[in-house]
Amino acid sequence: MEQSRPLDALNKSKGKRVVVELKGGRQFVGSLNAFDIHVNVVLNEAEERENNELKRKVGTVFIRGDTITVIFPE
Amino acid sequence: MEQSRPLDALNKSKGKRVVVELKGGRQFVGSLNAFDIHVNVVLNEAEERENNELKRKVGTVFIRGDTITVIFPE
Amino acid sequence: MEQSRPLDALNKSKGKRVVVELKGGRQFVGSLNAFDIHVNVVLNEAEERENNELKRKVGTVFIRGDTITVIFPE
Amino acid sequence: MEQSRPLDALNKSKGKRVVVELKGGRQFVGSLNAFDIHVNVVLNEAEERENNELKRKVGTVFIRGDTITVIFPE
Amino acid sequence: MEQSRPLDALNKSKGKRVVVELKGGRQFVGSLNAFDIHVNVVLNEAEERENNELKRKVGTVFIRGDTITVIFPE
Amino acid sequence: MEQSRPLDALNKSKGKRVVVELKGGRQFVGSLNAFDIHVNVVLNEAEERENNELKRKVGTVFIRGDTITVIFPE
Amino acid sequence: MEQSRPLDALNKSKGKRVVVELKGGRQFVGSLNAFDIHVNVVLNEAEERENNELKRKVGTVFIRGDTITVIFPE
Repeated sequence: MEQSRPLDALNKSKGKRVVVELKGGRQFVGSLNAFDIHVNVVLNEAEERENNELKRKVGTVFIRGDTITVIFPE
Repeated sequence: MEQSRPLDALNKSKGKRVVVELKGGRQFVGSLNAFDIHVNVVLNEAEERENNELKRKVGTVFIRGDTITVIFPE
Repeated sequence: MEQSRPLDALNKSKGKRVVVELKGGRQFVGSLNAFDIHVNVVLNEAEERENNELKRKVGTVFIRGDTITVIFPE
Repeated sequence: MEQSRPLDALNKSKGKRVVVELKGGRQFVGSLNAFDIHVNVVLNEAEERENNELKRKVGTVFIRGDTITVIFPE
Repeated sequence: MEQSRPLDALNKSKGKRVVVELKGGRQFVGSLNAFDIHVNVVLNEAEERENNELKRKVGTVFIRGDTITVIFPE
Repeated sequence: MEQSRPLDALNKSKGKRVVVELKGGRQFVGSLNAFDIHVNVVLNEAEERENNELKRKVGTVFIRGDTITVIFPE
Repeated sequence: MEQSRPLDALNKSKGKRVVVELKGGRQFVGSLNAFDIHVNVVLNEAEERENNELKRKVGTVFIRGDTITVIFPE
C-alpha cells in the first residue's frame, strides 16, 4: 500500500508550502522543492519565522535532515 | 513469532490515534498513517499538545524518527 | 555460548515485567513484549513512573532504542 | 526529475556565495567550492560572521556536515 | 596480535566485577555477563552507585552501548 | 572535477598548519599530518589555544572526527 | 603513504603513555594497549585525572570511542 511510507506522504506536499521545524525551535516556511531519505530538505521562496512572525527571507534554503523535528502544511 | 518485533506491534496501531512524544517533551497526537524502520512517522488529523491541552492543529505531520522517544495509544 | 550476547540476555525477560529508563531520567515499567537490534522496545500493560510513583498508565508503549539507557527486572 | 534531490539543488549554488549556519548559531559565508553526501562543505574566500557582522576571515574553510543546520544564498 | 583489539581486552573481564560509567555520570557495578560490538553490556548481580555508595540493587541489567563512557575493573 | 570533493580540498592542506575547531569551542593548531573519511585528524607540532593564546603544547594529537566543526588554514 | 591515515599515527603510540580526553572534559592517562576503527580505546595502568591531578587509579580501562575527543602523548 503506497500510503504506508512516511516519505510517500511527504512526497504529496511537493510544490506546496510547508513548515519545517528544527531542533531548538527554529522554523522555516517555504515551498517543498526536494527531500531525500535522510530527510534533507530544500524549500523555495522560504523564510525563517520566530514566534510566527517573519524573521528574514532566505530564498532557497537547504536544511540538513538531522536538524529537523517535524514537517507539516502551512 | 510475529509478535516479537517492535515495528509489528506499531503496525497494529495503524489508523488508530496515538500519542507521539519527542525529545524535550513535545507531544503530537493523531491518527497513525505511516512509519518506517527509522521510526519516521506520519500522523493524520494531528495536533500538538502542551500540558495535555491543545496547542495547535497541524493536519498531517511528518515526524523525524530520531526526535521521537515513545509512542502509545491515545 | 548463548549467554554471551546482550540481546540473548534481554530475550530471557520476554513476558516479564521490566523497568526501562530513558535519557533524562524518565522511567517506563511494563511487560517486555518485543525488542529488536536497535533496542527499540515494546512494553505491554505499561506505566510511566516518576520518583517511583505512578505518573500515568500508557497501555502498550513503543520506546525508541536510542532514547534508552538501561533495562532491568522490576 | 533532477529537481527532486536536495544535493542537486545545492549543486546549483556551486561557485556562488552562500551562508552556512551551524548548530549553536555560528555562521560562515563564502563561495561554495565543494560538498559531499554527508553535507561536508568547503567554502572559499570565507568569513565567520556574528550578528551579521564580520568576526574574522578564514580563507578556505572545511565545515563538517553534521555540524551544519541550513545553507542558503547570501 | 590478540591484544590489539579493545573488545578482546573487554572479553578478559567476562565473569569479573566491573564498573560501567554512563554519560551524565551514572555508575553501575556488576559481574560482566555479556557485551557486543555496539558495547551493549549485560551485568549480573548489579547495583547502581552514587558517589561510591549503593543507590539500588538492580539484579541483571542491560546497558545500551551508546550511553556508556568507560568500563574498568571494580 | 577534483575540486568538487571536500576531502580533496582538505588534502591540499596536508603538511600545512591548520586550525581545527571542536564542538564547544576548543581549538587545536598544528601541521595537518593525516585525516580519513570520518574526518578523524592527526596534527603534528600541535598546540591547544584558548582565546587565541597558547594553552598547552600537545605534540602529535589525534582528534576524533565527530568532535570537529571546522578546519581552516592558520 | 602510511603516514596519511590517522589510525596509523595512533598505532605508533601503542605501548606508550597517552592522554585520552572525553567529551565534558574528563581525562584518562595510561599505556595505549588497543584501539579499533570506532576509536574504542583500552589503556593499561590507567588513571583518571582532574585539573592535572590524580583522581583515581582504574587499572585497565575500556573507553568507548564516541565519548573521546582527542588523544595525545603524555
